[in-house]
Amino acid sequence: MRNTVGWQVEGPSTTLRRTPLERRDLRPDDLAVRVEYCGVCHTDLHAVSARDGQGGRPLVPGHEFTGVVTETGPTVTRFTVGDAVAVGNIVDSCGECTMCRAGQENFCHTFPTLTYDGTDRIDGSTTLGAYSREYVVRERFAYPLPVGLDPAAAAPLLCAGITVWEPLHALGVGPGTRVAVAGLGGLGHLAVKIAVALGADTSVISRSPDKADDARRLGAHGLIVSTDPEQMADARDRFDVVIDTISSPHDLGPYLRLVAMDGTLSHLGHLGPVTVETTDLLVGRKKLSSAGSGGRPATAAMLDFCGEHGITADIELLPSARVNEALDRLRRNDVRYRLVLDMSDLG
Amino acid sequence: MRNTVGWQVEGPSTTLRRTPLERRDLRPDDLAVRVEYCGVCHTDLHAVSARDGQGGRPLVPGHEFTGVVTETGPTVTRFTVGDAVAVGNIVDSCGECTMCRAGQENFCHTFPTLTYDGTDRIDGSTTLGAYSREYVVRERFAYPLPVGLDPAAAAPLLCAGITVWEPLHALGVGPGTRVAVAGLGGLGHLAVKIAVALGADTSVISRSPDKADDARRLGAHGLIVSTDPEQMADARDRFDVVIDTISSPHDLGPYLRLVAMDGTLSHLGHLGPVTVETTDLLVGRKKLSSAGSGGRPATAAMLDFCGEHGITADIELLPSARVNEALDRLRRNDVRYRLVLDMSDLG
Repeated sequence: MRNTVGWQVEGPSTTLRRTPLERRDLRPDDLAVRVEYCGVCHTDLHAVSARDGQGGRPLVPGHEFTGVVTETGPTVTRFTVGDAVAVGNIVDSCGECTMCRAGQENFCHTFPTLTYDGTDRIDGSTTLGAYSREYVVRERFAYPLPVGLDPAAAAPLLCAGITVWEPLHALGVGPGTRVAVAGLGGLGHLAVKIAVALGADTSVISRSPDKADDARRLGAHGLIVSTDPEQMADARDRFDVVIDTISSPHDLGPYLRLVAMDGTLSHLGHLGPVTVETTDLLVGRKKLSSAGSGGRPATAAMLDFCGEHGITADIELLPSARVNEALDRLRRNDVRYRLVLDMSDLG
Repeated sequence: MRNTVGWQVEGPSTTLRRTPLERRDLRPDDLAVRVEYCGVCHTDLHAVSARDGQGGRPLVPGHEFTGVVTETGPTVTRFTVGDAVAVGNIVDSCGECTMCRAGQENFCHTFPTLTYDGTDRIDGSTTLGAYSREYVVRERFAYPLPVGLDPAAAAPLLCAGITVWEPLHALGVGPGTRVAVAGLGGLGHLAVKIAVALGADTSVISRSPDKADDARRLGAHGLIVSTDPEQMADARDRFDVVIDTISSPHDLGPYLRLVAMDGTLSHLGHLGPVTVETTDLLVGRKKLSSAGSGGRPATAAMLDFCGEHGITADIELLPSARVNEALDRLRRNDVRYRLVLDMSDLG
């Protein structure tokens, strides 16, 4: 086994502590990656919070990271030592089902292996995430980091970026499409940047009027204040696509009413049950969809697109030792717009 | 006023009684129609049942009917006395909002005037439906009955038919599309006929294995029994479009799981809140939509299509005096596949 170190939750605690970790010895198609930067995602917060008083197997979060290849297995062909790479929230899949064959490993029929808190398909061990100095990953699930992108600010592309890319791409967003992004956070601000770069006429919906300047700086035409009934009424039926990135459960009705005839609300911000009034879909023949993560081809395409357009996240970089503070700030929504941990303090 | 007769519920009763009714004198763009046949729709059942112990203004149901023009107002240009016509569940709309201008009068921003239990836009009276010997309607909301279609069996096209036509058309169903129709009732059997005529590869999903012969007779390739977990598992991710016509609240999860990547579940059978698990949409990037009724251009297109393909409902014709029995049978799902009232017994 390989020895490294990372930030781990153990037992019924929600405090991450610096802990020695083991990584597997390289398999033939594995890369060892020195993790440089890892984004702090809402999923990490949910996973840590779920341990509160519950316990469970040890947890090392972190599933959007960039780093440098330090060693390669003998059959690795796409990477060499020293390459800058990026890894997202999936590190393996069956490779044989319809979804895998279609390049949608995120929908693998036997469930993809998650970057942390998943089960390795070969040795059955629990995967430990990238709040760590080293990660070992199958070559297939690592991506070259596009030249010119800041590796710290690019890390969030691997989860937040691909999650918003998928619906924007699948719904055919491009020049002339009217897009509204609800919620200007980690997902939302990347959705705005990508939608604008795709040529869409993009607006932001937020309960915070003080985000109007940021919305415009990101390229949006303006901001609709969701708590202002008049503004919401004016925006009725106005958008072909509404990307709903709000991270807490909420009534979808007000957002569906902003969708234009035959348009789609893509609900991305959180998992769990959602309830909609049939009439909110029926009137205007609207659609509700969701998305999360992406397959290998889409992830590669998203990175290419972001490389060409110079798109990265707006981040605040913290030493990894401040990980508990980072999660606490995310819980309080005190982030504009993504916290990224710098792993160099792990030695 | 014009005098006629119809089947009406009064007070807190759910029994329809033969009652003299008044119709308005013809306005310049009105037609008087001698109602010949009127379909019995689930909406009628809901409207009648809602009176149980409650009372409310008098109710005459009936919103899918065919008949013959007996008189025309002075500005009527599209119809003359003796013409066979069909009328659906909308008899007026504002004509000025975005939706009306787009030919989607069913989504009129000020709400369309319903054929019964609606409020007339000019005199404020409550509209009385077509369980009646005469109906007076604005020319704009009457349609020529295609030559060659049996007027009794064509009546259900005006509500059930347009309701399934809208999503099939909007979702681009055609040759090669894999369609499943859940629920083989009034809506469902028309959805199968229309999907087959559009060239789709069509299946039926039903809890009743004894509907397999009917499914094939209607042109479907086969029937999936919804209560058989093995058949439902085999059908996973198999259909581009699932048209859900089940008329009672039910879990959408099993039906969403039959939808293929990027496909759509169109939920038509009933109104009210529906709850879906986000993951059932997310995995496979599926969409949930709904539809109900249609605008004037779509209704005309649907009738043309049904005329060309000889599509009408499979009906059982009952004298209108058996209306209470008809509603009771609909309540018990004892209908294959649409009951139609013959108004000739009203004199």
